[in-house]
Amino acid sequence: MATLSDIAVSAAINCLSAVLFLVAFAILRLQPLNDRVYFPKWYLKGIRDSPTSSGTYVKKFVNLDAKMYLKFLNWMPAALRMPEPELIEHAGLDSAVYIRIYLLGLKIFCPITLLSFAVLVPVNYTGDHFEVMKTNMKDLTFSDIDKLSISNIAPGSSRLYAHIVMAYVFTFWTCFALYREYMIVAKMRLHFIANERRRPDQFTVLVRNVPPDVDESVSEHVEHFFCVNHPDHYLTHQVVYDANTLADMVVVKKSLQNWLTYYTNKYERHPNKRPTTKAGFWGLWGKHVDAIDFYTEQIETLSKEEEAERERVLNDPSCIMPAAFVSFRSRWGAAVCAQTDQSHNPTKWLTEWAPEPRDIYWDNLAIPYVELNLRRLLMAVALFGLTFCFMVPIAFVQTLANLEGIQKVFPFLRPLIEMGSVKSVLQGYLPGIILKIFLILLPTIIMFMSKIEGFTAHSSLETRSAGKYHLFLLVNVFLGSIITGTALQQLKEFMNQSPAEIPKTVGVSIPMKATFFITYVMVDGWSGVAAEILRLVPLIVFHLKNAFLVKTEKDREEAMDAGSLTWAVSEPRIQLYFLLGLLYSTVTPILLPFIVIFFAFAFLVFRHQIINVYDQKYESSAAFWPDVHRQIIIGLMISQFLFLGLLNTKKATNANYCLIPLPILTFWFFRFCKGRFEAQFKRFPLEDAMKKDTLERATEPNLNIKLYLQDAYVHPVFKGSMEFERPVVVDEEENSPLVATKRSIHHREGKKVIQQGSSEDITETPKGGSVAGPSARHW
Amino acid sequence: MATLSDIAVSAAINCLSAVLFLVAFAILRLQPLNDRVYFPKWYLKGIRDSPTSSGTYVKKFVNLDAKMYLKFLNWMPAALRMPEPELIEHAGLDSAVYIRIYLLGLKIFCPITLLSFAVLVPVNYTGDHFEVMKTNMKDLTFSDIDKLSISNIAPGSSRLYAHIVMAYVFTFWTCFALYREYMIVAKMRLHFIANERRRPDQFTVLVRNVPPDVDESVSEHVEHFFCVNHPDHYLTHQVVYDANTLADMVVVKKSLQNWLTYYTNKYERHPNKRPTTKAGFWGLWGKHVDAIDFYTEQIETLSKEEEAERERVLNDPSCIMPAAFVSFRSRWGAAVCAQTDQSHNPTKWLTEWAPEPRDIYWDNLAIPYVELNLRRLLMAVALFGLTFCFMVPIAFVQTLANLEGIQKVFPFLRPLIEMGSVKSVLQGYLPGIILKIFLILLPTIIMFMSKIEGFTAHSSLETRSAGKYHLFLLVNVFLGSIITGTALQQLKEFMNQSPAEIPKTVGVSIPMKATFFITYVMVDGWSGVAAEILRLVPLIVFHLKNAFLVKTEKDREEAMDAGSLTWAVSEPRIQLYFLLGLLYSTVTPILLPFIVIFFAFAFLVFRHQIINVYDQKYESSAAFWPDVHRQIIIGLMISQFLFLGLLNTKKATNANYCLIPLPILTFWFFRFCKGRFEAQFKRFPLEDAMKKDTLERATEPNLNIKLYLQDAYVHPVFKGSMEFERPVVVDEEENSPLVATKRSIHHREGKKVIQQGSSEDITETPKGGSVAGPSARHW
Repeated sequence: MATLSDIAVSAAINCLSAVLFLVAFAILRLQPLNDRVYFPKWYLKGIRDSPTSSGTYVKKFVNLDAKMYLKFLNWMPAALRMPEPELIEHAGLDSAVYIRIYLLGLKIFCPITLLSFAVLVPVNYTGDHFEVMKTNMKDLTFSDIDKLSISNIAPGSSRLYAHIVMAYVFTFWTCFALYREYMIVAKMRLHFIANERRRPDQFTVLVRNVPPDVDESVSEHVEHFFCVNHPDHYLTHQVVYDANTLADMVVVKKSLQNWLTYYTNKYERHPNKRPTTKAGFWGLWGKHVDAIDFYTEQIETLSKEEEAERERVLNDPSCIMPAAFVSFRSRWGAAVCAQTDQSHNPTKWLTEWAPEPRDIYWDNLAIPYVELNLRRLLMAVALFGLTFCFMVPIAFVQTLANLEGIQKVFPFLRPLIEMGSVKSVLQGYLPGIILKIFLILLPTIIMFMSKIEGFTAHSSLETRSAGKYHLFLLVNVFLGSIITGTALQQLKEFMNQSPAEIPKTVGVSIPMKATFFITYVMVDGWSGVAAEILRLVPLIVFHLKNAFLVKTEKDREEAMDAGSLTWAVSEPRIQLYFLLGLLYSTVTPILLPFIVIFFAFAFLVFRHQIINVYDQKYESSAAFWPDVHRQIIIGLMISQFLFLGLLNTKKATNANYCLIPLPILTFWFFRFCKGRFEAQFKRFPLEDAMKKDTLERATEPNLNIKLYLQDAYVHPVFKGSMEFERPVVVDEEENSPLVATKRSIHHREGKKVIQQGSSEDITETPKGGSVAGPSARHW
Repeated sequence: MATLSDIAVSAAINCLSAVLFLVAFAILRLQPLNDRVYFPKWYLKGIRDSPTSSGTYVKKFVNLDAKMYLKFLNWMPAALRMPEPELIEHAGLDSAVYIRIYLLGLKIFCPITLLSFAVLVPVNYTGDHFEVMKTNMKDLTFSDIDKLSISNIAPGSSRLYAHIVMAYVFTFWTCFALYREYMIVAKMRLHFIANERRRPDQFTVLVRNVPPDVDESVSEHVEHFFCVNHPDHYLTHQVVYDANTLADMVVVKKSLQNWLTYYTNKYERHPNKRPTTKAGFWGLWGKHVDAIDFYTEQIETLSKEEEAERERVLNDPSCIMPAAFVSFRSRWGAAVCAQTDQSHNPTKWLTEWAPEPRDIYWDNLAIPYVELNLRRLLMAVALFGLTFCFMVPIAFVQTLANLEGIQKVFPFLRPLIEMGSVKSVLQGYLPGIILKIFLILLPTIIMFMSKIEGFTAHSSLETRSAGKYHLFLLVNVFLGSIITGTALQQLKEFMNQSPAEIPKTVGVSIPMKATFFITYVMVDGWSGVAAEILRLVPLIVFHLKNAFLVKTEKDREEAMDAGSLTWAVSEPRIQLYFLLGLLYSTVTPILLPFIVIFFAFAFLVFRHQIINVYDQKYESSAAFWPDVHRQIIIGLMISQFLFLGLLNTKKATNANYCLIPLPILTFWFFRFCKGRFEAQFKRFPLEDAMKKDTLERATEPNLNIKLYLQDAYVHPVFKGSMEFERPVVVDEEENSPLVATKRSIHHREGKKVIQQGSSEDITETPKGGSVAGPSARHW
């Protein structure tokens, strides 16, 4: 096992790699060429303009100002400078609350670290069981670290009461911090929703499983039903079309239009030579044709087809799904409809809050009740299989993908494979590579499973996937590290052990795995976070696209991949650190500083990324917090049970009974918080709806809400076309642009903005110049 | 172990005792003297009048018509004759659906019995493992019954596949029957609710946790809140007073008034002698006074006190609880308010459907959120303790209640106790008696626990208690019989066994306990049900009261204890039979006929009791069905797991894997049904609310709903007084009398009714003459 010096070396290596990442980031971000990679958020907001269009030719690509390189860590204070209310306005509540998870980690673990170093480390260090163990049993592997851990306490020692008291103190502190944070987030959400501008989803309810009617179309049926049952509140509705084919066509047409623009530009630059292309696939083969004519013709054909498909979708009743977005005159009416049962058949006329238009996952809107249930059952079984048997398919693929198999499929590789050295390397690494590929694909697989489950909003897809990934990490990373062997073997072992034995088995190996987890925190946590800020993959992809694919300025805009918080992957990972911290707080306190450093560093990095990089796809107003809270409590309870098992091995039977109320109280705390707060994250109370309605009626008595909602929930495919065909809808309130025309407004703003953020400006504006957007002046 | 002939003897004894009970019932019910014991429902409905007031003197007490005794089993077809719709009208939906549980038992177990006798009994009988076992191991106790059970199959035999196929068939049949029953009950409930007369609870919502306000009283605060947030629908509200002291006074006053009536009557019969009484406690000691003067004076004093207390309660703001019954203009408005969140603090302004006025448990209306949570936590811990450690307090009481202790407390008993024979009897029986007392007290204890949990309706108190009792029976009767030893010992044993071992341990002993459970079914089921129809305790109590306490005709009315379905006790017991039947259907099919006979007999008896005896205290419109459904599914899953464990002991590993999908599918079926039906039992859909509102508006455009609701939710204590003080409220609709004046209307009806149901009439009217109520003519 690793000694203290081993850990010091490992820490040094990881610190070094983290510092290297940071230095690379500091240098790369100053190059104007990379500006769109490291500050895309400001471009998307239209506040920053491309620095490559100003200055000398060299300055366009490389930053030559030496002074700037000296201040390469300046982004750190800059990331902290933006106050939270401004951050919420700048990046949305979801992002602001996301980094509060790291802050919560700091709040929980800083006091715990101090306390456990002040109390438990001295108690453990003077335990002197270590020497006994060392002399008695030479085969057991004990390290220096164990001198500071609970392993150094003799079985049955009364010193264990110190650990039990601390377990209580830590649990109470964690619960207190969790309660306070829940309250703060709930208040932030309430405040955010109360101050939100008018949004279509406030007035709209998604109705699913509209029963078929022989006499009426879906649209008429919906209208009649709501006219009858919500006579004073029903306003309008929008049926949902099955427009997947049409959506594909739109994508193809867009690509053709890009090619056309590209060749037209080319022809304008060299008017003496008309560009040609090949008529075959991707312009790679086929006979030569005039490029501009070819693409013009192609686009025309496709436009006709698209128009025909559009007509078909709009007129064919079988393309109308049994679902609709129903809008109401007031938020009160929508809140009532979303929260009540409409029909005495609880599988028909299901109503729920409509997600934000951007947030809708259109493909899942028309799944009938029985099918939905079957899908959930299948996915539950699949998740169980994925979690506990995830080695089985991999082993299967690994046997298929042996060298002989590859030789059969690709006979031309035979000479290469049969070279001795290549063969051994392949045979050694292939299984590892397949495992790695599977782990990289895992989030995609999990997201695919969530999509099959039939959720209708991207936000719920993400939270569901996060839940699944959390389970996977718990079983395969956490338990898998503590008890070696695959999860299926573990499960088998657990099934054949008594329930009282399981925590004991795990309990014994926990202190021994402390050094492993310290290394894990440094590699996965420290270096992983530093790699996140470097954005190596988006950097390379951007430059590749820039070099080979970008044809127009619009393409460059699209090549810029701002990315977003990958909630389904990052959040379960944070939970693992919470679990490790809570578990080792009483067992091996030396692990805690590493956790604290991780939380502090990640807080800094993600705050910077949220300000400068990520572009959130939707805004759920922190609706995910109950999940975060629940998962931390799960971690807390797991740590309590394992500690209980550990104490069992220490033969502290009386002490053991003292710990039994702990998980019961924790579970009660969970139930209490659930009742106290959860409804605020799921529902929209009538009191607040009424308040907003009254306020709106007073300030804008002439508002035409029907006009405002007209296009909000049209399928994006139709929305594009309607923008072309229909005059821009006039709205009384200038500050709340229609969602349908949002993008065009951003474009206009983008042009008005001062040339800001070019390489010279960065040094003059306060650190991380781009941080100070126009809204910063209010503060 | 018992042989087949043992069981035959036991069956004969139990049949005999059941027949004896039935004969006793047949004789007793024909005596006019007992008429109020066996037909109280008709008295309460006012349709039957006391037979003692007609005919000769002897006929008043003893039925001398010999012909009637010959037809002593005539009540059975009579019990079946009333069609279900009429039964619903006669006894309410709750009762009608309650006996459907027995019917469901018949539906499930009749085909299962046939099938398992056709398939499994031959397969088992020809298994021939029995002989092998008998010769090999002489210490094991096998009986003849085991020849017909799975014990007769050799381990690893392929005959076990027959059992597995049957397990699937039985599960699918059970699920099908459950699904169909759920659908039927849901339809009945819907139909019942749709045809229900106007009831105050349709318009009313119970609001709890009204937040305190410094400027306004609770009443004003409620009014303002709902005027603002439900402006178009709010009608009126009724605050809740803490009137427990007042309620006590009313009870005392009533008793005094009874005494006064008694002495006045006495004086009227013997006008020459004024009756005297003693002024002390219960008229037992103190100086002699004139009784009429004494009680008149007492009543006057108490009336004054009561008036003062009433004034105090009505005027003291601290007597107003932070809860209110808020009524709305329409059912739609009430449905909306009951189903939505009012405030952004989910612990304030909690709304739920108001229970029926009769159904309210007034004491629990004002428990704040945190306290409610604490109470539930404490009760959960207490329930765990009660279930698993219920022997501990009993053992404690048993040690306290030893003979020496009794001698100390009651020294005068010493000579008696010190007699040798008495001593040994006492010492032998005392622990058993204490256990029996505890078991009799158990339902009361459980109900007390439910009351502490803070439910606001008698119906929810009963369902909660039933759930607790179900758990208790499962652990202490079912598991306790299979594995001998107290529940705590079982728990300890289970904790130290592997999860895979538990079903094995239980599995082994299941076939061996078949004979025990057959006897149990006969003793608890057959004889228990027969005892139920005899109503021995109410019979004795009625005659005791009649002899010693009844002073006035009103007292006689009150001495008649109709009783009601003791849901919290009977329902969990039925569940035990479901569990036994499902479990032994694949293991020892010989048990099934006993279960079927139980269900058929109980169906008959309870249908008779519901028609003639029970008087339900409230009507929940079968809201309990989801619980029944859930508990049967729990039984089904327990039986599946135990069968799995049993097969494990049979070394049928492959066969075992075939069974694993069974509990998964069953659980999925449960989830499916929950989603498909449960909302119909918890909520009131807007569609139906709107339909009823529209209909009512059309048929009664001038209905004054405010007047109708005025007194509905007044505390019963005030209601009584208001009836005296206020003129009877005039209602436009004659058929729907005010709840407040219901009793008086019944009284009036009672007098109008023809002298029906005297002993002679019974033979003339179709069987169980009283069955044919006036409403029967519609069918």
